[in-house]
Amino acid sequence: MKAHVHVTLKPGVLDPQGAAIGQALGTSGFEGVSSVRQGKVFEIEMEGTDRATAEARVDEMCRTLLANTVIENYDIRIED
Amino acid sequence: MKAHVHVTLKPGVLDPQGAAIGQALGTSGFEGVSSVRQGKVFEIEMEGTDRATAEARVDEMCRTLLANTVIENYDIRIED
Repeated sequence: MKAHVHVTLKPGVLDPQGAAIGQALGTSGFEGVSSVRQGKVFEIEMEGTDRATAEARVDEMCRTLLANTVIENYDIRIED
Repeated sequence: MKAHVHVTLKPGVLDPQGAAIGQALGTSGFEGVSSVRQGKVFEIEMEGTDRATAEARVDEMCRTLLANTVIENYDIRIED
């Protein structure tokens, strides 16, 4: 079973890396880009378990290790 | 219009960061995790344009700046 986890900065949290990429896009000739935010994605392969258990385990992984819940949101998608 | 871009390492490309996270999950008591791969996600906000044009522009951004196509795959999703 495979879990896809997206970790993104909460709205309002400063994202200097995203801002730098936005600026680089501008200087590369891409106009009309109003904002860029960068986040992380984790693809976690787990040994056989049911969907609900997998989701609960990945949620705990996010809270304890993968995301800093003070400044980041996470989103979990389980794929069979 | 908002574009979500996922940049992930191609299968077979070594991912030491993902491996380190997998190991950290193991030592944190999460068993049964067979592999972790880490990637990047970009959320790009663009000023008004149609869907096809937006997708073509983001594709060019990926090829020129956001992804290293030698070792990375990218995936674009346009949201209205």
